[in-house]
Amino acid sequence: MLGPAPVKADVECCHKAEHGAHGYNENKDSHLRRLRRIEGQVRGLARMIEQDDYCIDVLTQVSATTRALQSMALGLLDEHLKGCVASAIHHGDDPEAKIAEASAAIARLVRS
Amino acid sequence: MLGPAPVKADVECCHKAEHGAHGYNENKDSHLRRLRRIEGQVRGLARMIEQDDYCIDVLTQVSATTRALQSMALGLLDEHLKGCVASAIHHGDDPEAKIAEASAAIARLVRS
Amino acid sequence: MLGPAPVKADVECCHKAEHGAHGYNENKDSHLRRLRRIEGQVRGLARMIEQDDYCIDVLTQVSATTRALQSMALGLLDEHLKGCVASAIHHGDDPEAKIAEASAAIARLVRS
Amino acid sequence: MLGPAPVKADVECCHKAEHGAHGYNENKDSHLRRLRRIEGQVRGLARMIEQDDYCIDVLTQVSATTRALQSMALGLLDEHLKGCVASAIHHGDDPEAKIAEASAAIARLVRS
Repeated sequence: MLGPAPVKADVECCHKAEHGAHGYNENKDSHLRRLRRIEGQVRGLARMIEQDDYCIDVLTQVSATTRALQSMALGLLDEHLKGCVASAIHHGDDPEAKIAEASAAIARLVRS
Repeated sequence: MLGPAPVKADVECCHKAEHGAHGYNENKDSHLRRLRRIEGQVRGLARMIEQDDYCIDVLTQVSATTRALQSMALGLLDEHLKGCVASAIHHGDDPEAKIAEASAAIARLVRS
Repeated sequence: MLGPAPVKADVECCHKAEHGAHGYNENKDSHLRRLRRIEGQVRGLARMIEQDDYCIDVLTQVSATTRALQSMALGLLDEHLKGCVASAIHHGDDPEAKIAEASAAIARLVRS
Repeated sequence: MLGPAPVKADVECCHKAEHGAHGYNENKDSHLRRLRRIEGQVRGLARMIEQDDYCIDVLTQVSATTRALQSMALGLLDEHLKGCVASAIHHGDDPEAKIAEASAAIARLVRS
């Protein structure tokens, strides 16, 4: 018999190739909406450059866009920990590798 | 008579409303190309989410996109210092305010 | 019977009050050595300011010190995921709360 | 005759070897006080590790220490722009090199 229920019982892992289910599946629409908004922000930046807006105003919008991308990344990472990593730990499915992989992604986010 | 030549003689300031010339004018095409590439990266992220790509792979691409935005911001800031700020210092056109404004933009970049 | 072995069988959690064992216990000496080195870097910064070193050189050393602190934080976080979070998931000991808490710490690191 | 007064008339440059005066000279005590506080924060981190404090609490303090270092860096940079860079631009003393050097320091801060 297995131990306690995983954090998200219905979510095995976010890796399609392996499991056919994904940590971020249920928030997929929300992620896509966020990305469409970020795409709009990037197009807005191009418009600002085209109409020769003041550099400092462009920089303020670049910072806002960067923060929006980071928020999205933090959301994805949280779901990945709750779904894929929790499942690997729960099922003993090479949890060390899954945690090492998540830590490397966290390091890239912190350093970018 | 004025002192030594400004860093960019032909560039007064990047604020159109004030001067009709811009620190980033000569690199405008390069900025627009960069932004089109970044827009493509954001659309690529949406495609990854749509086809249920592995979260860690999505996160890697988010980090790359964030870095591309930061590089663009650092380029704009460098031009702003060379153009607008240098000109304000050279002409005594309220340089304290221009430097304080640039420092605030740098702080936003460092903290975002 | 419990499921597969936790990632670190002998490490329940890094919270002393709760478990008397810690995720970072086995690396305690390494963390203390790192912190002593970082303390030395901060004292070196004060020495640079005292002897009027060039600002840009001081800034380079501040960046190096910040990176050393971040590396230490990333190491602690990795151990926390392997120890405390993995144990909470494995034992069904309120894993949602542990993951939410880790995600909040990751967000603070990314944004600082 | 020279143009308008530099931003800080009495401050040539923060490079001792070149000018014997420093952009951060007048704030030297404030920087040294900040660094002593940061040194105290780093020693506090070592104490937390020694007494086996909870990892997440240690991480919160690491983030606070990182932010304190960044604030100090942003202060130094602001003074460098007002003193050394403004002076180089005002006196035509190789301003391109000074701005390129400042931009490189800003990039290191943004990326660390």
